[in-house]
Formats: sequence, structure tokens, C-alpha cells
Amino acid sequence: MVVAKSSSASDPINNNCFPCSNGTTISLSTLSPNSIIDAQKGDPLAFESYWKQMSDECTVVIKGWELMSYYSDSSNMCWFMLPELRDEIERLHHLVGNAVTKDKYIVVGNGSSQLFQAALFALSPLDVPDHPINVISPTPYYSEYKNAINILHSRMFQWGGDAAVYDKNESYIEVVTSPNNPDGTLRVPVVNSAAKGKLIHDLAYYWPQYTPITYEADHDVMLFTFSKCTGHAGSRIGWAIVKDIEVAKKMVTFVQSSSMGVSKESQTRAAKIIGVICDGYQNFKSIESELFFEYSKRLMRERWENFRGAVEQSKVFTVTKYPRAYCNFTNEISETYPSFAWLKCEEGIENAYNFLRKMNICAREGERFGAADSKYVRVSMLVMEDEFNELLKRLSNAKIE
Amino acid sequence: MVVAKSSSASDPINNNCFPCSNGTTISLSTLSPNSIIDAQKGDPLAFESYWKQMSDECTVVIKGWELMSYYSDSSNMCWFMLPELRDEIERLHHLVGNAVTKDKYIVVGNGSSQLFQAALFALSPLDVPDHPINVISPTPYYSEYKNAINILHSRMFQWGGDAAVYDKNESYIEVVTSPNNPDGTLRVPVVNSAAKGKLIHDLAYYWPQYTPITYEADHDVMLFTFSKCTGHAGSRIGWAIVKDIEVAKKMVTFVQSSSMGVSKESQTRAAKIIGVICDGYQNFKSIESELFFEYSKRLMRERWENFRGAVEQSKVFTVTKYPRAYCNFTNEISETYPSFAWLKCEEGIENAYNFLRKMNICAREGERFGAADSKYVRVSMLVMEDEFNELLKRLSNAKIE
Repeated sequence: MVVAKSSSASDPINNNCFPCSNGTTISLSTLSPNSIIDAQKGDPLAFESYWKQMSDECTVVIKGWELMSYYSDSSNMCWFMLPELRDEIERLHHLVGNAVTKDKYIVVGNGSSQLFQAALFALSPLDVPDHPINVISPTPYYSEYKNAINILHSRMFQWGGDAAVYDKNESYIEVVTSPNNPDGTLRVPVVNSAAKGKLIHDLAYYWPQYTPITYEADHDVMLFTFSKCTGHAGSRIGWAIVKDIEVAKKMVTFVQSSSMGVSKESQTRAAKIIGVICDGYQNFKSIESELFFEYSKRLMRERWENFRGAVEQSKVFTVTKYPRAYCNFTNEISETYPSFAWLKCEEGIENAYNFLRKMNICAREGERFGAADSKYVRVSMLVMEDEFNELLKRLSNAKIE
Repeated sequence: MVVAKSSSASDPINNNCFPCSNGTTISLSTLSPNSIIDAQKGDPLAFESYWKQMSDECTVVIKGWELMSYYSDSSNMCWFMLPELRDEIERLHHLVGNAVTKDKYIVVGNGSSQLFQAALFALSPLDVPDHPINVISPTPYYSEYKNAINILHSRMFQWGGDAAVYDKNESYIEVVTSPNNPDGTLRVPVVNSAAKGKLIHDLAYYWPQYTPITYEADHDVMLFTFSKCTGHAGSRIGWAIVKDIEVAKKMVTFVQSSSMGVSKESQTRAAKIIGVICDGYQNFKSIESELFFEYSKRLMRERWENFRGAVEQSKVFTVTKYPRAYCNFTNEISETYPSFAWLKCEEGIENAYNFLRKMNICAREGERFGAADSKYVRVSMLVMEDEFNELLKRLSNAKIE
């Protein structure tokens, strides 16, 4: 086989700046001032050290003959979902209080990416196939929505761009991402149209480490992902919580026809790890270790404090200030600590991406999120610790030449 | 959460005959003459007993902090593929001699289902978006191709039906399934059109247990799946072997935008299990156990011999006779032993599906594979042993009333 190297001009996830995507842990010894820091992608590696501490409790052992069938639970409409994963997902939401699962249907998918496509399929009208429904979200919106839609070249739906300026008298699907990727803001639907709209709530970051849990979300279609909740992005486990059984059934059909279900190895591991988190809170099994959301929230807070310090020192960038709120889960007042920083550069710098690139920091260009100008850039807050420290060092020394 | 039961009128995989899809192992003690035998689905549970023998060698242990990144190998265009899986796939094809991997690109997917969609995306022309290319395959064709295409409502491609009667002077994509699902025949492209055609070779069953390995396949796009090779359907691991780098790149982009990669847990387990198979042959590590393809071929031969015996005894059905050929892998002459039997009922029975259904045998109707009449039905040869024995008993006693 030919091992095709990605060309230097294209990166596998962002079609840009490939050398940043090293994909492996950079050890301190190899991180020199000239090393490229990849802060463009959303790989949530920051939580790895927690799971190293919890390694034994979370270990899964799968024997050669186990998990062989396509089927997981044929008594459930979502026949490919392991019952233990469903149970742990419900338990986690009940523990955290971030989403209502009662009287709702859970659909598991190959990451929330697949469930996003499945939800669009389920919510789009079938009767007007040559008039695809517009899928919209206010800028700045998550850059991958557009790709996930455009790749399908669907007759049912199409990317419609910025929801804030949507004024067509046609039905639409609005994606409400809260906290938002890339800018961390808390969002509600923005379209105020006479036309009938449907909503997809992408709640990937509605977990205590990123934002105070202020209400139990109870929307029609809510998407969550194991990647952002615990940091296990390689497992490709997402889930949707769906109010209408017909929508849930269609989503199941989509996952079935697209991939004939979801990896059972990943499902069994996700169930195990979510179970360990819940056990920690409920059974005090992990009393000697820090509990997951305590650890991850502390880490996010510390990173944000240090990051704001570095940004202020540089006087080159500004970063969004978030409101404080009471968190029903942690019982304390705190800020939002998003998984990305949405940086704006000051006068004198025209292109934030290029400015950072000269400092060997690879970020994601604001334009890719529909931002109007090139002064914005998205920087991951979830890189490995040594990379994050080097990022702070470089940012604090940034100067307009 | 509401656990939505599948309605009795619809089955999750075949939208038909749900009570058949029990999904769990039926133990001998619970299999009564009135039990429904589910032989409609393709769940390859027959090989489970082999993997029970090999349980320890094949066990994977995954610690809590492992496999967390989205990335597997950013030096490879298929950045989400674990290098060890790529290596074991190449090793297996080299061992078996069923496909050329040299100078080709391997793309991993969430089952070959996802790679089928990815290949259609990659092979369809982008420049004529309102004139979708026809995807065709001769009847009887695998029933899921149509579903995988129709669910996408794509502007790029559409299901075009029976390749044998395709006479449009338009470009097309022909799916060549060999051995074929449902009828086990060995196939080559059939369209003889002046128009330019592209080919997808679905070689899911081109393994020594199902058919003699007579040549090293060297086609443009070849699809394989872990499900049918070893029986691990729950892992959802498929791979494509692709000649043209541009096609491979597009397939990677499709998998990326649809599911942001492929479960690493499944990949690591597939690599382990394929490695154990290869070790058995190459290092004689498993000298005391039967080697996998020896075991599985013996099982298929025995099942087919018994099945033909039962069918002949009944005088109600006929089943395809397959040619014998020399297998380059096993160095013996043998028949094809397909994973499904394609039964045709004799005069006096109009509907093969209904006839079997009265005997509490659930099969898949011939019409779903594009068969012209209801005399045909597909029966799985890969059910659990006790179910298979009960199936034989019922078939051999079948009588036209």
C-alpha cells in the first residue's frame, strides 16, 4: 500500500495548515520555541491526564467472541444501542441536570457528526424534494456544519448560512449551538420569521467544565458527544435526545443505512467511563481522587485565567468576556470556560491567523466560521499541557511589528 | 427515557417481520418447534464458537486514557486509520492472496456501508449536479444498496436498478458483488454500454470460507468488511482498497465529514483479531487450534452439505449449484459456500417467503433483491448452530399442503 502523505497544503480536518496536525502527544523535551503548536483542531487531549489517574477503573477488556452481532437491543427502536450505554447516558444527564431524558428517545451515532446529518434527514420535509430546506446558524457558527451538509449534495436540505440575517418566508432548520463553537456564547434561537422553523440544539459543550448548568434542557432534538463530555474523541460516540418518536425513528434509519449501527466496542467503553464518572459522585467510590467535573472545571478555569493574563500582557488581542451564573450542578457561581478562545486582534493587525502563524501557532481562521473579517481566529483551549504553556508564553510575548 | 419498542410490523434492519430479530443467542433449551428462526438478517454469528476457543489470544484491553485523540496517523491521508490496522489488513490480503494492496490506498470506514456511500460520492461527477449518475447492479442485488442510496436523496447519484437491462447512453456506476449477496454467484461487470462506466467491487464475501480464491483482485475500488471476514459485525469496520489517490482522498473526506473518523476501539480490536489469524498461519502460534479459514471453511462446507440434503429431502425448493474451482489459498478444489442460500420454491408455491413464514422461518423476500417474482427467498447460512439445526429439521419436513 502507498502511504499517502497529506500534502503540505492541506490538513485532514481543516484543509489547511497540515504541519500543525501532528496528532501525537508532544513531549516537553521536543517542544522547542520553533515547534508548531496546533491549536486549530478541537482534539480534547487536555483531559488525558485525568484518565491516566483513573486508568484502572476505566479499563475495558473485550474478549475475542464478544460483541459480534449487529444487534444490541432489539427491544428498542434504536436496535444498535447497547442498553448499558443508554442507561449510563440517562444516569449522567440525571446527575448533571443538563438535559431532560424522561419521555424522550435516545439515538446513538458515530459521533454527533453523524447524528447532525441524521437529524437534518429526519427534520427535512420529504414532499418538496427539489426545494431543499435551509439549514442556518448565526455567525460565528461551527465550521463543520457546512461541510457535513455540503458533502451530501442533498435534495432535502442545504446550507443557508447566517441565521441572524435569515428573512426568507420559507421553512428552515436553525442550529442552536450553546455554548457556541467557536465563541463560547450561550445561545437561544435567533430567527424571528413568520415561516415555520425547526430547531437542532447542539449541546456538545453544555457540561459543567465549560459552563454553569443553569437549566435542564428540554428541546426537541438535542445533540451530545462523548468527545467533548469526557475527552474521548477517538471513540466516535454521540447521542441525540429526541422528543418526537417519528423523528427518532428516522434518525435510527439514517444511522442504519449509513453505517449499519455504531461500534459496540466504543459503546461498551463509553458506558464504562460514564459509569465511573457517575459512580464517583453517587457512590463515593472515587473519594480519594478528584471527581471528573471538579477536575475538568478546575483545569478549564486555570487555563482561562492564565490565557486571559497572557492575552492582556500582549495587548495585541482581545477575548470575549463571559457572564457569571450560578451552576445548579457545582452549586457555585462561575463563568463560562469555553473549549475554544475566540480571539480578535487589535488595530494594526489585519489577519489574525497569519499573525499567529508567524509565531508558529496554528489556529483556525475566523472566516471559516462565517465571521465577517479576518481579525478573528479560534484557538483550542484543550491542547496538551506543555503545548498550552508554550502557547501562553508565545501569546504573552506577541508584539505588533 | 421511553424505550420505544419496534412495532411488530417493522424490523429494524429489513422493515419486515420484526419478531424474527431477536438479536440474542437462542439457547437449545429455549428453541422449541414453535420458535421463530431468524434467517433473514446477515448477522454472522456462526463463527462465534471459533472466537470462544481463541478468546484469550484475541482479548483487547483498553485503558481509560488510551485512544482519546481524533487522530490516528496524521502522516497518512487517511488520518483516522490506526497504522496497526492498516498493517494487519495488508498482511491479511497478502496471506490470503485475494486482493492487491501494493501501490494502492486503504481507507477505513464505519462498516463497508459507509464506504459504499463514500465511494459513490468519490466516483460521481460533480459538474452535473442536477443529473445524478445511475448506480446499478444486476438482479438479484444486495437489498441494502438501494437503501444506502435512497436515504441520502443525493443530487449526485441515484439508484438505477438492474444493471443487466441498463441501456442508457449515460455514464453509470456498476456495483459488482462477488460472491454475490444474495445468490452466491461469482460476478464480473455486465454492462456493455457505449457510455462510460465506473465500477465498485464489493468483495465482502471474497474470503476462503465462502469461495475458492482464484485470483488476486486488482480493481479500482474494492470494498471489504470485518463483519463478513471474521464475523465481527458489531465492530462496524470496513475498508476500501483504492487505486486512484484522488478517489481515496474524496472517500476520506466523506468519512471525515460524516463521522469524523472511525472508532479507534474497533480499529484496535480488528487489528488484534486479524493479527491473530495471520499469526496462526505465519508463525504457527496456533498450531494446536484449527486455523481460522480452515475452521470457517469446514463449517460452511458442512452446513451447505446438510442444507442441500434437507432441501433435496423436502422436494419443495431448489438451490443454486455452484462451480468447483482450485483455491490458491487452501490448495484444494472446492465449491463456493455462500453465506446465504438463494432458495427457489417449486411449482405449487407462489410465495416462498410466506411459505417459510408459516414454518416459523423468517427469510428475506426475493423482491427486495430485485427478483422478478416471489418464488425466491434469501436464507442466512450464518445463524447460530442450534438455529441452523432447527432450520434443517423444518426444511427437510417441508411439504406442499
